Amino acid sequence: MTHPVSLYRMGHFNAAHQLAIPSWSMEKNLETFGKCANPNFHGHNYEVEVRVTGHLDPETGILINLKDLKEILEREVEDRFDHKNLNLDCPEFSAIVPTVENICIVIYEIMRPLIPAHLDLGIKLYETPRNFAEYPGR
Amino acid sequence: MTHPVSLYRMGHFNAAHQLAIPSWSMEKNLETFGKCANPNFHGHNYEVEVRVTGHLDPETGILINLKDLKEILEREVEDRFDHKNLNLDCPEFSAIVPTVENICIVIYEIMRPLIPAHLDLGIKLYETPRNFAEYPGR
Amino acid sequence: MTHPVSLYRMGHFNAAHQLAIPSWSMEKNLETFGKCANPNFHGHNYEVEVRVTGHLDPETGILINLKDLKEILEREVEDRFDHKNLNLDCPEFSAIVPTVENICIVIYEIMRPLIPAHLDLGIKLYETPRNFAEYPGR
Amino acid sequence: MTHPVSLYRMGHFNAAHQLAIPSWSMEKNLETFGKCANPNFHGHNYEVEVRVTGHLDPETGILINLKDLKEILEREVEDRFDHKNLNLDCPEFSAIVPTVENICIVIYEIMRPLIPAHLDLGIKLYETPRNFAEYPGR
Amino acid sequence: MTHPVSLYRMGHFNAAHQLAIPSWSMEKNLETFGKCANPNFHGHNYEVEVRVTGHLDPETGILINLKDLKEILEREVEDRFDHKNLNLDCPEFSAIVPTVENICIVIYEIMRPLIPAHLDLGIKLYETPRNFAEYPGR
Amino acid sequence: MTHPVSLYRMGHFNAAHQLAIPSWSMEKNLETFGKCANPNFHGHNYEVEVRVTGHLDPETGILINLKDLKEILEREVEDRFDHKNLNLDCPEFSAIVPTVENICIVIYEIMRPLIPAHLDLGIKLYETPRNFAEYPGR
Repeated sequence: MTHPVSLYRMGHFNAAHQLAIPSWSMEKNLETFGKCANPNFHGHNYEVEVRVTGHLDPETGILINLKDLKEILEREVEDRFDHKNLNLDCPEFSAIVPTVENICIVIYEIMRPLIPAHLDLGIKLYETPRNFAEYPGR
Repeated sequence: MTHPVSLYRMGHFNAAHQLAIPSWSMEKNLETFGKCANPNFHGHNYEVEVRVTGHLDPETGILINLKDLKEILEREVEDRFDHKNLNLDCPEFSAIVPTVENICIVIYEIMRPLIPAHLDLGIKLYETPRNFAEYPGR
Repeated sequence: MTHPVSLYRMGHFNAAHQLAIPSWSMEKNLETFGKCANPNFHGHNYEVEVRVTGHLDPETGILINLKDLKEILEREVEDRFDHKNLNLDCPEFSAIVPTVENICIVIYEIMRPLIPAHLDLGIKLYETPRNFAEYPGR
Repeated sequence: MTHPVSLYRMGHFNAAHQLAIPSWSMEKNLETFGKCANPNFHGHNYEVEVRVTGHLDPETGILINLKDLKEILEREVEDRFDHKNLNLDCPEFSAIVPTVENICIVIYEIMRPLIPAHLDLGIKLYETPRNFAEYPGR
Repeated sequence: MTHPVSLYRMGHFNAAHQLAIPSWSMEKNLETFGKCANPNFHGHNYEVEVRVTGHLDPETGILINLKDLKEILEREVEDRFDHKNLNLDCPEFSAIVPTVENICIVIYEIMRPLIPAHLDLGIKLYETPRNFAEYPGR
Repeated sequence: MTHPVSLYRMGHFNAAHQLAIPSWSMEKNLETFGKCANPNFHGHNYEVEVRVTGHLDPETGILINLKDLKEILEREVEDRFDHKNLNLDCPEFSAIVPTVENICIVIYEIMRPLIPAHLDLGIKLYETPRNFAEYPGR
């Protein structure tokens, strides 16, 4: 088999956030981020889809062990962000706005060193079933 | 037709909340509410299912006008709670803990006076697709 | 086992319809049925949930044979309404408006004689994932 | 608040099963259970919905602690049936056929003694998104 | 960050349509389009997924403002096609058959001029949860 | 229209399987495949997404006739694997482990010769809503 295959695993976390740039006025933040700029925060059930792409081990039929992938995702993403306030509790967002695009990239940066280098990685993040982002990392 | 029929409409709102009793210690709150007691809040995509039950108008085949039901739900529930912090922004939860059970009952109490009295009302509220509550109001 | 149990089966059909009372003016129809009164029709992917309730056969563990229930649902509901115009193609709606409430009751009336009399029947019909009706038939 | 409220929690397990009565001929089993009688087994992703009904604790706004309910469901249902062959690995089905109706009742019988007696319990079990059963236990 | 990111927004509309070529005989249309050729129309709940791809604004963490994207989608797609008959009410389909593939391309052509030229656009359209099309526009 | 478009169709089958290499010890199989190595099998509701990509027929607006695609999928995939034990009943897996990655590739190999050569084919296979694989065949 010469073509690459992808394996996907979904994870989830429930978090609060605010979209705002601290150095901006509330007026400017509301104009840019709308009701997402509420200074008291709002929240979402985030669903994260991890994609790993590469070539199968021909003996086991495994691309990456799903047990390992699930464990990395739980430890590094779910446990880190679940039931947290992304702005206040998570240093990853101390200097960047936790938009769905940025959270997606942050999850990619966290997971990239933990996935074998010969495998490709991509992240898709659902903020709601109707708003989502994708960072294919290439 | 002598049996009652139900009409359902789904709405949604994204909100932050904390589960805690202000007069309790953080230790006691954590013991009772677990990670939901995070003082910096977390959040959810809430899905609310409104049920109205009664007898159809035989001419129109309508139990309650879906346009009206949708409008009440948008104005009284979605606009009120969407992108809000239930603890800080919503006086409805100033004296009660915003558990999924209590939010369900609060939505019932808000909507009950706005639905014709001869119709039965019930509320189901999804905090996540795996945790939800129902208040049939009877 | 002395308590009743329910078995459910989902079916689906894609249909066009118009909500309007022929003897009314278009103005009155638009006022009552809104954009659903479009004289050129609109349409939906309907999902129908059939519930049968009663006591299990203790030897087989079966309430009603799912193969039979599926077959009745396909023949009497899916084949009858799929890819049809409910107003123009289906005599069931020649005298009643095909609201989601009425379609639900019509499906109940079609299926009731085909389900053994000692079993209870209920129908739930999704016009969209956010608008639906239920007719428990009791 | 004088009306009861319900709290729901979803769990899941992936299992193999065969629908057949050992003392019957294969012909009779196939006639009754169709392709579900395959002697080599087939399988499903089961989704189980647990409903607990009663009155809230007015101070905490909690009906039953979701952490406890989740833990009971994981330990007693998910760990017991996940990645199992219901016919070969699970003594609960040594004398009864693992139809979706019977599995639903078995889960009820397992959980009933573990839920406080003043609370009502109900189980709904999805064998597929289109076939499911419910045992309200009353 | 040097890799592109995508932002997605879902919209929906409920519409009637017929798949047929007016200059063909009904026999030929039925042979090609099956029951979708019903001259009285049938309908669907369409779900449309809009993808915008490009580079984030590093200050705001925004690729394209979701408020703007949502507004364009509502005004140009949902309002245009919701509760319409695609064949009779929509000039976009006066000369082409409203297959799911063609509707997908039409939506792309409508939205392309309204999305900044430096951003890539793609459209995915669900006619049902089991039949869908995608036009990546490149 | 110069860009390619894709048409998708979903199918499903319910099957049992075991992940294990017969020549390995049970210890080694459990270490690699975890609880999926259960020698008595477990099972899943598999959802398969078929993607066909190419250029539309400009007259009909059709990429590939959905009736034909549905028929091939039913006959070659659903009928072949539904209510089967992949390890015991399906010669396709006599020499390879039925991981979600391998099943995905097997379905591709089955369908590739049946789809016109000028059209591209891809397969995505959901073992559960949270674990899935994709084989784009290129």
